[in-house]
Amino acid sequence: MILDQIGLPLSQVAALLAALRRRGETVATAESLTAGLVSAVLTEVPGASDVVRGGLVVYATDLKAELAGVDRDLLAAHGAVHPRVAEMLADGARQRCGADWGIGLTGVAGPDPQDGVPPGTVHLGFAGPGGATVHSVRLDGDRYAVRAAAVRVSLEHFAGLLR
Amino acid sequence: MILDQIGLPLSQVAALLAALRRRGETVATAESLTAGLVSAVLTEVPGASDVVRGGLVVYATDLKAELAGVDRDLLAAHGAVHPRVAEMLADGARQRCGADWGIGLTGVAGPDPQDGVPPGTVHLGFAGPGGATVHSVRLDGDRYAVRAAAVRVSLEHFAGLLR
Repeated sequence: MILDQIGLPLSQVAALLAALRRRGETVATAESLTAGLVSAVLTEVPGASDVVRGGLVVYATDLKAELAGVDRDLLAAHGAVHPRVAEMLADGARQRCGADWGIGLTGVAGPDPQDGVPPGTVHLGFAGPGGATVHSVRLDGDRYAVRAAAVRVSLEHFAGLLR
Repeated sequence: MILDQIGLPLSQVAALLAALRRRGETVATAESLTAGLVSAVLTEVPGASDVVRGGLVVYATDLKAELAGVDRDLLAAHGAVHPRVAEMLADGARQRCGADWGIGLTGVAGPDPQDGVPPGTVHLGFAGPGGATVHSVRLDGDRYAVRAAAVRVSLEHFAGLLR
């Protein structure tokens, strides 16, 4: 399972989906550095389709604007790795995918810096019925470790928002 | 690495990206049963960003139409797991993500049948500068094995199209 590689117990993701199910709510993603991993992990749980809508993989910077509706001026002024971009990705995922919740991830997996931002810098956006928030973290390790940790932290933080 | 879990050597995916780079072409995805895994695997290779544009995770059936432009009548008549849907997903990925190539995946990961189609049925669509094709397969194993095999077979088939 992909969950094993990410270091997330299946029971933890299943509990997150169960929390959404109890609330009658759905989720969608807009992922840059993780490029679909959050979505892949959520749907590894059988029966995920009643609460997981889908998502946007916005690897190229222009797709963050094109697919998820992130402000082009913001991207031009600050680059793709910025807390406000994560927030707008989350909101874009929610709106474009018709979900109650959106999770947006942007950051630098490495090995090289991007837009002058060092590897390990990750911004996690969450948009829900009550508005949007951002959780910014600095993650250790190589490209694979940073991506895996970004998935873990985003889902752990999201589970906290549902409690 | 996720590639390890999928059973794909890093060198094989790196060679696929190098083939795209030599041709000066890019790729995007529209994924249903794999929900972002193909995209995640392609971007696990450092430097993927010059040939991988991004993608669409179209888990919910209506998002196949909404995000990727799959014909609603086709979905209503045949359900989401149909060769023509895979072809339209590939074309939608290519167009909506502004890529030279699109890979579209639809199928049943299991454990339950979907729209009357048994688990293991997978349709892989490929849209490129020369048109679109579909490769349909019947994959063995549980939910995780079917998803992993769908990723492997799609990338192996795509590599063949670039040769």
